[in-house]
Amino acid sequence: MQTETDILSTTFAALADPTRRAILARLAGGEATVTELAAPFKLSLPAISKHLRVLQRARLIEQGRQAQWRPCRLNPAPLRDAADWIGQYRRHWEESFERLDSYLREIQHDQQQDKEEHDDRDPHRPR
Amino acid sequence: MQTETDILSTTFAALADPTRRAILARLAGGEATVTELAAPFKLSLPAISKHLRVLQRARLIEQGRQAQWRPCRLNPAPLRDAADWIGQYRRHWEESFERLDSYLREIQHDQQQDKEEHDDRDPHRPR
Repeated sequence: MQTETDILSTTFAALADPTRRAILARLAGGEATVTELAAPFKLSLPAISKHLRVLQRARLIEQGRQAQWRPCRLNPAPLRDAADWIGQYRRHWEESFERLDSYLREIQHDQQQDKEEHDDRDPHRPR
Repeated sequence: MQTETDILSTTFAALADPTRRAILARLAGGEATVTELAAPFKLSLPAISKHLRVLQRARLIEQGRQAQWRPCRLNPAPLRDAADWIGQYRRHWEESFERLDSYLREIQHDQQQDKEEHDDRDPHRPR
């Protein structure tokens, strides 16, 4: 049995590929067969199947058992766990955004003051 | 320049390792030197340095420039982007949780009904 830590690693590794993320995006709209999933990509069926195996091992997708029509569907549970893990750092990116925001406001304020000082200058004073 | 898609892949690949996630968790508590980061792991300094390089390439950590004291610190911006990407699927895991929840309530309700029917039975009726 995989530990929780290893499951997270498997989830993140499965997400570390644009084609696999595009497959998940497609399945978010509803189940699809392997052929339907392969259609938008310039990839061979074996190449798509390899990506699907990675997604299946990570339990991000499930595939029906019927021999001919084996639609794949999204299993969102590992995504929730990945979101929970990343969510621990929310405070950090919010704080760093606030710092950037207040820095930009400060610059804007300084520029405004410079402009006002400039406008207040005696216009008749020789430059 | 990396495309946005590739940056996400690099972020997820960097997160797909328990040691690297533990390093980020340590840095969430404040900046640390490489030696301090290596301490809790039974890993050599070169092994830790390799993990740090992966995290740096993914811009998840930044390292000071001073030759002797080069503390690493967390850069949370790529985590925010990864959270945004996963967040698109929130609706899916919430719905699937609700389905599970209503299924469990249904089972509980059925069991309660069975129990009540059983309790209502005439106790003198031969079994």
